[in-house]
Amino acid sequence: MKLYDYFRSSAAYRVRIAIELKGLELERVPVHLARGEQRRPDYLAKNPQGLTPALELDNGAVLTQSLAIIDYLDVLAPQPRLTPADPLLAAKVRGVALAIACDIHPLNNRRVLNYLRQRLGQDDAGIDAWVHHWALEGGLEAVERLIEPGPFCFGAEPTLADVCLVPQLFAARRFATPLETLPKCLAVEAHCLAQPAFAAAEPSRQADAE
Amino acid sequence: MKLYDYFRSSAAYRVRIAIELKGLELERVPVHLARGEQRRPDYLAKNPQGLTPALELDNGAVLTQSLAIIDYLDVLAPQPRLTPADPLLAAKVRGVALAIACDIHPLNNRRVLNYLRQRLGQDDAGIDAWVHHWALEGGLEAVERLIEPGPFCFGAEPTLADVCLVPQLFAARRFATPLETLPKCLAVEAHCLAQPAFAAAEPSRQADAE
Repeated sequence: MKLYDYFRSSAAYRVRIAIELKGLELERVPVHLARGEQRRPDYLAKNPQGLTPALELDNGAVLTQSLAIIDYLDVLAPQPRLTPADPLLAAKVRGVALAIACDIHPLNNRRVLNYLRQRLGQDDAGIDAWVHHWALEGGLEAVERLIEPGPFCFGAEPTLADVCLVPQLFAARRFATPLETLPKCLAVEAHCLAQPAFAAAEPSRQADAE
Repeated sequence: MKLYDYFRSSAAYRVRIAIELKGLELERVPVHLARGEQRRPDYLAKNPQGLTPALELDNGAVLTQSLAIIDYLDVLAPQPRLTPADPLLAAKVRGVALAIACDIHPLNNRRVLNYLRQRLGQDDAGIDAWVHHWALEGGLEAVERLIEPGPFCFGAEPTLADVCLVPQLFAARRFATPLETLPKCLAVEAHCLAQPAFAAAEPSRQADAE
């Protein structure tokens, strides 16, 4: 399998954490988003969305969307299981993962900020206000109320919720989003980053990091 | 169980389709987004994100995020199964569902358009340009290349991909987004809306419709 990856993409970072937690070995292919490599025809033929990550299987099939890829890996290599077997706990875990993956990340990713800057004339202050707003309001402030740390987001084992939370906090720090209203999230993050699997997936540790 | 719902919310519309497909009976509680009812303290206590839908279980637990709710219903009432059992097909279905749920819907929903209008001073033309851009580019134009209709998005049975596609096309029509580059998506939509379950979930058929 090959993972099409970008060190700073928080969606790709989620998949890297899952891969490390499961101890999978696979080839990493960097797709440099800041240089526009995601819009090259050969990459768009694999992922028509032109986003990272994408997972190419040995039979040539390509999977898109980080959470779909992680669900696939959860079947392929179920130790540890990132979506719990209990349906109610699974729904809570997915609720937090999707709050991040749907309602924070897509609003604050590179392509949207480029549109705000280039087409709507937003300056650095406008971009920062936008990023902080969506990161916090209805976003991480809601996640803070939804998680039940112990010491991961939902108990003693890492789940999809942790896999999404840690990269979103990394993204928030890049924009200096104030995080002091999120003590539970920050405690989970500190616990996660003390684990070798989470640490190995950090952007600064990737071969394409700048 | 109670579904906190709003007729025009495309995320709530997804859950309504799933409920109708599975033949579940449950109470619907309208949360009028245009009147701000999602920000009332009693609703925020149930769903800290202040979004619809939310599903309240008989034991009082509240599930948030439409795709997490549908996955829960898929375990509770597995006929028809909206995420296929085959892991590769499931990943493709989830890839399309998440392309819509992460990369189109959250950019074009009410709260974001309100921000663009009220805080960034966008007029109707600016809003329409934004909505069309995210609906099409990297969005439905990618979905058009990812689905394999036959006659639903992925074969002869409805899946989570159809459950997400039909409401997103409804939302696109509200903004008169040009859809002529999406013949496969439109054929799937026509097939879906000819099914009683999809038709019963349409916004205009809901008790709170205006």
